[in-house]
Amino acid sequence: MTTTNSQDSSPASTGAAATVSPTPAAEVAAYALRLADDALILAQRMGEWIAAAPQLEEDVALANIGLDLLGQARSLLTYAGAVAGRGRDEDALAYLRDEREFTNLALCEIGNGDFAVTMARMLVFSAYQCELYARLAASTDETLAAIAAKAVKEVDYHRDHATQWVLRLGDGTEESHRRMQAGLETIWPYVEETFESDELFTSIAERGVGVDPAELRGPVLSYLDRVLRQATLNRPETSKNHTGGRRGIHTEAMGYLLAEMQHLARSHPGASW
Amino acid sequence: MTTTNSQDSSPASTGAAATVSPTPAAEVAAYALRLADDALILAQRMGEWIAAAPQLEEDVALANIGLDLLGQARSLLTYAGAVAGRGRDEDALAYLRDEREFTNLALCEIGNGDFAVTMARMLVFSAYQCELYARLAASTDETLAAIAAKAVKEVDYHRDHATQWVLRLGDGTEESHRRMQAGLETIWPYVEETFESDELFTSIAERGVGVDPAELRGPVLSYLDRVLRQATLNRPETSKNHTGGRRGIHTEAMGYLLAEMQHLARSHPGASW
Repeated sequence: MTTTNSQDSSPASTGAAATVSPTPAAEVAAYALRLADDALILAQRMGEWIAAAPQLEEDVALANIGLDLLGQARSLLTYAGAVAGRGRDEDALAYLRDEREFTNLALCEIGNGDFAVTMARMLVFSAYQCELYARLAASTDETLAAIAAKAVKEVDYHRDHATQWVLRLGDGTEESHRRMQAGLETIWPYVEETFESDELFTSIAERGVGVDPAELRGPVLSYLDRVLRQATLNRPETSKNHTGGRRGIHTEAMGYLLAEMQHLARSHPGASW
Repeated sequence: MTTTNSQDSSPASTGAAATVSPTPAAEVAAYALRLADDALILAQRMGEWIAAAPQLEEDVALANIGLDLLGQARSLLTYAGAVAGRGRDEDALAYLRDEREFTNLALCEIGNGDFAVTMARMLVFSAYQCELYARLAASTDETLAAIAAKAVKEVDYHRDHATQWVLRLGDGTEESHRRMQAGLETIWPYVEETFESDELFTSIAERGVGVDPAELRGPVLSYLDRVLRQATLNRPETSKNHTGGRRGIHTEAMGYLLAEMQHLARSHPGASW
């Protein structure tokens, strides 16, 4: 953890003795973009729940969780745009990239399904984000560290919220148990992708800038197993795991999601009207 | 303003000397329900904007406005349910009523259209809500007064937000002006319904419990005219004005909106799973 993001021009960071070469700006930007895309795309899905959850109180909770994710996405997109130095701001990155340029996990893009599917996804994703941001708060990149330190408090609440619902549904009636188990079966083929590493992740982790998701697998699955056991649910077995999101290869649902999200901005380029 | 809602059992209010008979609980409930339905249905529409506005910052603003409306709806629905004494809570009232039982304005239910349509609607509706809640804060019904006192601060912000956008778009480029004017033309046939009175409104106003919307017409149109003039926009002429929302007669858009909003709760009656 002796190098820093080369875009950070504060003397304290650039003045540190570097034992490895500075992290290329493109790597930092690409890394921030991955985290941003996860949050942005899931925020879009959460927004679909407003006034559609089984209780009005839950509508408000889900909308607020969506807003937390949108806030994280905005910070990360702005930073990715600034570091990349290509003049793309948060809006250009959100609204003007093509599907293949989005690097989010499939876990974030698949349709909401019923309430149990949404809660299963929130449990997995928030458990992942909790472990990720807790570590990223110690990043040598001061901006990423600050974003993560703020976000970890938010996602800790998201994880609590999802945990309580999974316990309530899993350890509830026969019907609620059946549906919650079905929700887990639906999202489990998208869980392993969350922990997939590649050259960018290992490079960014070696430099102390980011976190290799492979190291999150143990703690995240351990948390999930504890919740599932208490909820009398079974961890699903999957024969085929989805992959490719980090390289821009997405499920069918992604095109529809982007069409809705980008329609307005794209039909008025520059949004200057 | 000498009578109070008969459901309010605090000595301070029920002890007041009554010069007219106490307001029937059914009237108070029906009145609260009208205000609740306006806010609930528009909250649903605002939710559709999450991560779909022309700027991420605006996504956050629109989602927060939707949450304000949802909060107002929840308070009003809860009160309507309690006063009516038929054992229906906020969720039952939101999710288990049929289309004909909803008493919201058509203004709140019509589709979002493009961003200019959404801003035109927000300008009109928030101007209406501002004048309404400012007066309702002096209601002899302590609960309605308290709900209105809180809500007026929220809708004052909504009105500012919409005003700024209408000014920016109306007095912007040729294209933005054209679209903003078109947005006004789209929503104007739904404006007059906002001020329509009927027996319930006049009765509730006479008793000091609520506000007759007819008395809001002057101040609201005066505010709108000032904004439109400054934005170099024209107040549209309408030959046909929509009516019937307060009696449960809705536009085609309402059925689709309710289907989406109620689908989950209805497919799991009691939401006990």
